[in-house]
This record gives sequence, structure tokens and C-alpha cells, in this order.
Amino acid sequence: MSQVRIDGLQYSNWSETVFNEMRQGGVDAVHVTIAYHELFREMVLNIEEWNRRFERFADRIFLGRSGDDVRRAQREGRTAIFLGFQNPSPIEDDVGLVEVVHTLGVRFMQLSYNNQSLLATGCYEDDDPGITRFGRQAIAEMNRVGLVVDMSHSAERSTLEAIEISDRPIAITHANPHWWHPARRNKSDRVLRSLTESGGMLGFSLYPHHLAEGSDCTLESFSQMVAESADRYGAEHLGIGSDLCQNQPDRVVEWMRNGRWTKVTDYGEGSADAAGFPNQPAWFESNLHFDAIAEGLSTVGFSEAEIGGLMGDNWLQFFDRSFGPM
Amino acid sequence: MSQVRIDGLQYSNWSETVFNEMRQGGVDAVHVTIAYHELFREMVLNIEEWNRRFERFADRIFLGRSGDDVRRAQREGRTAIFLGFQNPSPIEDDVGLVEVVHTLGVRFMQLSYNNQSLLATGCYEDDDPGITRFGRQAIAEMNRVGLVVDMSHSAERSTLEAIEISDRPIAITHANPHWWHPARRNKSDRVLRSLTESGGMLGFSLYPHHLAEGSDCTLESFSQMVAESADRYGAEHLGIGSDLCQNQPDRVVEWMRNGRWTKVTDYGEGSADAAGFPNQPAWFESNLHFDAIAEGLSTVGFSEAEIGGLMGDNWLQFFDRSFGPM
Repeated sequence: MSQVRIDGLQYSNWSETVFNEMRQGGVDAVHVTIAYHELFREMVLNIEEWNRRFERFADRIFLGRSGDDVRRAQREGRTAIFLGFQNPSPIEDDVGLVEVVHTLGVRFMQLSYNNQSLLATGCYEDDDPGITRFGRQAIAEMNRVGLVVDMSHSAERSTLEAIEISDRPIAITHANPHWWHPARRNKSDRVLRSLTESGGMLGFSLYPHHLAEGSDCTLESFSQMVAESADRYGAEHLGIGSDLCQNQPDRVVEWMRNGRWTKVTDYGEGSADAAGFPNQPAWFESNLHFDAIAEGLSTVGFSEAEIGGLMGDNWLQFFDRSFGPM
Repeated sequence: MSQVRIDGLQYSNWSETVFNEMRQGGVDAVHVTIAYHELFREMVLNIEEWNRRFERFADRIFLGRSGDDVRRAQREGRTAIFLGFQNPSPIEDDVGLVEVVHTLGVRFMQLSYNNQSLLATGCYEDDDPGITRFGRQAIAEMNRVGLVVDMSHSAERSTLEAIEISDRPIAITHANPHWWHPARRNKSDRVLRSLTESGGMLGFSLYPHHLAEGSDCTLESFSQMVAESADRYGAEHLGIGSDLCQNQPDRVVEWMRNGRWTKVTDYGEGSADAAGFPNQPAWFESNLHFDAIAEGLSTVGFSEAEIGGLMGDNWLQFFDRSFGPM
């Protein structure tokens, strides 16, 4: 088996071009976002759109449900698409929807997206009272059915509590260490130690707002950050979660940041002067560019086996452990 | 393998008692109704209730998705529960929901329930313009994913057209021949010939309004009707679809008949003087009583193999052919 390549998060403007690039880039599996602020029925409409894509591009993509589907994708030269929510809005106030969305194929759910949710606090709130009463019930149910807790956009205390409360390892699918680039979305050393010591996974983000020097970040700087993270946390708990938002119009980042919760524009990680999507660094603009990352990791001294883990095998082991019933 | 027993339709007041009776009665699989007038989100709440039952009574019942799940049920001494709609209301006006409900485990959908629907005409309407434009699209999609067209409560022309339009055999899960008992819900000889000649299945109903002499119908009369049907249509296309509504309060039959579509009470097959559920014939009151039916069939001259087919194997063959993608 050649190197497995898994991307722990993308939200591109899906098209035949993107799916062709996944194949050309040797990407066997991608976790894709199907909800930012959608309620249940709206999220189902997004699943219906994916079903049309699975029908139309059946020779290139299919719905992934398990680690074995990643192996099948590699065998068949296709890409397994794993569904996830960046916000728990699709389960509304109903813990019974956790199993329903898992049956529909959803495998990751963030407990909050920047703001306070019914379950947890987001990283843009001033105060973080931790996991809520509903949040505890939802985590237990997610553990039972095999829906992964993702805390990428959550606040510090909520994240530490989610790691503690969850009986199964959780994920931060797309973020970087705060010690490398002190963005609000990046994670403290304390969180990353707690995450990885409990068997959880961190996916490194390639989104410019999460990178030191932003769009000008060098592959060398990124690779050195990965090497330092491996020293601190162990390479086996690390992977890629690129947060690639390829070809999206700026109204999409507006929707991510503002949903329907504010009448006053919130610029999130951007600003009034730079409200739209930032430019990707030149060395990672699409699914064609995973080779560059593998090469960058090689130059900072990782072994071939470690690079295989970072590029996908660590995610695959995590998928194997996480997506079935407990 | 001992005799397979499958009931083509029940809508009982689900309880541990009913599930125990399924086991004691040797019932390996039951198609249960989860929607009469519910829209999508309401139907999902009914799936959530079933999920709680599957958790609580996991040693007795589980969600059936395929013919092999019936064999698994028999092997494990449990009952496989297959989900179905008596009305297409849960797919609303959205053909994409056909695949979504199939993914959730739904395996049968009636195209209309007594009234005109968006897809077809019900058997209580005065006029039947046949399958609608949306109906044709829905049938094609149901064929593609493996969701069985059920015309139990539909009108004559719509039923004949559904048989013709569908690329896969359809079912009338619970009804009897009109020539035996001329109730509005029972089916004409023409419909039953067209149904069975195209490989479709008829499930004989034990609901008193569908029986000659109603609650006083004898097992002998019922069994003779089955024998006559086998002569006309071939025993291999016939099974049981008891329409058992055990322990339901009368408000449930009111909901079935009136939903939210009328402010004036509609009594359906009943009347103002007999508005509630009728009494079952004494020889079929619960899942404990399938032995009686098998014995009745034996007295009218069916072979052991034919009885095996009628009691469940014919449904099993149909499940094998019907629930997967085309």
C-alpha cells in the first residue's frame, strides 16, 4: 500500500475540478464540512447535494463511513468523503439526532463554532463556562454511536472539559499551536498536551489566519512547527487538516462568521479592510500540493514512516478507532 | 432453517409486551409504519423513538435493512423491524429525500394514503388522475435506491400506473381481494393480476374492515380466500400483511383518518356509530397467533413449502430483490 493521504478538513467550492485534483493529488479521504449554522432540515439539504455529487462523480468520490472505506478508496483510485459539522446546530435541541446524523454518515461534530452553542463555548466569547448540561449528554451519545467530538473552534475551558468528559479520544481537526502563531483559533500547549495524551488527534491547518506570517508563511516554517509539535506531543497524534476553502466566494466566509446570529458584520479572523478569504501560501493552494508538504516534512528530519503517519496513516488509525459503536 | 415468518405491516402500540409476543410467535421480521401524515422532521422524531426501543430491547429487536437481516434475526432469536411510510408526506416536495430516508432505514413508502398526495391518488377520492409528474420522478428514485413502492391505500388507476411505471416490482403490503370483500380498500382482480404478473407482492390483511364478515370472519373463510388467490395469482406472490394495530387507543385511528387535513371528522372505513378500532377476529389478535394462520392454510390444501412461502419466505425473496440499489 502506498502512502495514505487524508485531509482532516476542507470546505471548498465543490466541483469536478476539485474532485479531479483530489485524485491527481493522491488524496484518499477528506473530511468535508456540511454545516456551519444550518438546522437539521437545512443540513439534510446539504447531504442531498452531496448525494447528487456521489451519483454524478461516482468514479472519483463516494461517502466514507469507516476506516476501511479509506482503504477501499485507495484500492479503487477514488476519494472517500467524510461528512462533518463545524457547529452542533443540526442536532438542534435534540440528543436523539446524534444517532440520526451518524446514520446519515456524519462522523465529526464541533461542539461550538466561535460563539456559545447549546453544548459548549466558542473561541470568540469573552467567558467560557465549560461544557453545558446538554453538552454532557451529547458527548455521551456521540461516544456511544461513534460521532467524533471536534473542538477546533471552541474555547479553552470547554475544550479541556470535552477531552476530560469524553470516554473516547477527541479531535481538533484544523488548528495550529498558539506558541507558533498566537491566533485566537490556535490552541494552547496545555490543550494540545491534554488532547494528545488522551489519544486525540490534531490536524494542522493551512488556512493563512492560522499560519505564522499568514499568506507569506514558508513551507520551512510550517514544517519546523510540525517537527516541534512532534517533539512535544508525539508524531502519532498529528495529521493535516488543511481548512482549504478553494474557489469560495467571499459571501461564504461572511456566512461562516455571521450566520443569522448578527445584524452587525463580524469579521472573525479578518477585518473590515480584509473581509474576504485570505490568499493561500503559494506552496499549498489545492489538493495537488500535498507532495510539497510531504517534502517539507522530509527536510526537517522526519522518517518515512513518520511522514506516512502525518500525511494520513495517523488519521486512518483514528478513524478505525472512532467511527463505530463503543 | 425453520419456517421464516414475516408480517408485511403492523402499527401496534409498541411495548415490551408486543416485542415479547413477536418472539413467542416466532415472527422474524415486521414492516412497521412510522408515518401517516408526518412531515420529514416529524418522521425523524419517530425514528428516534425506534432508536430508543432498539437500544432498550436490543436482545429482542433491531433495525432491518436487508433480506439477510431477516436471516440474522432468525439465527439470533430476534425480530428485524423494517420501517415504512403509509403516505409520502415525509419526503415533502423533495425527491432528494427518497435517498435520505432510505439511508435512515426506510424500505417501503405508500404513494398515497386515502387522499390525493403529491405523487398519486388515494382510494377515497372520487377521481383518480393517475401518477403525477412528481410521482414519476419519485418512483424512478425509489427504484434507484431500493425503496419499495406500496399502493395499499391508493386508487385503482394510480395503482395500475405505478405498477407500469416502476422498473421494479411493487407491493400492496396490506389489503385483500375486492372479489372476497368489496371494501374500498380491497383491490380489484385487475390490480392483483397486474401486481403479481409483474413480480409484485400482496400481503393479506387481518384488519376487520378488510375481512368478509368483519370481526366475525372465520379462519376458514380467510384461508379459502388465500387458496382462491393462489389459484388466480400464484402462491409465490402472496404473504401476510396483518395491519395489526394492537392496543392502540382510538385517537390513533382518528389521526390516521384525519391527520391535519380536515376540520370535519372523517370516519374512513368506520362510521359515526363505530368510530374506533374494530375488534380483531378471535383467531388473530396478536403476534402470538401466526400458528393459527399456518394451520388454517394447511386445512385448505396448501403444501408445506407453499405455507412456508406464504408465512414469510415469499416476502424474504422479495426483500432480497428490492432493498438494494438497482
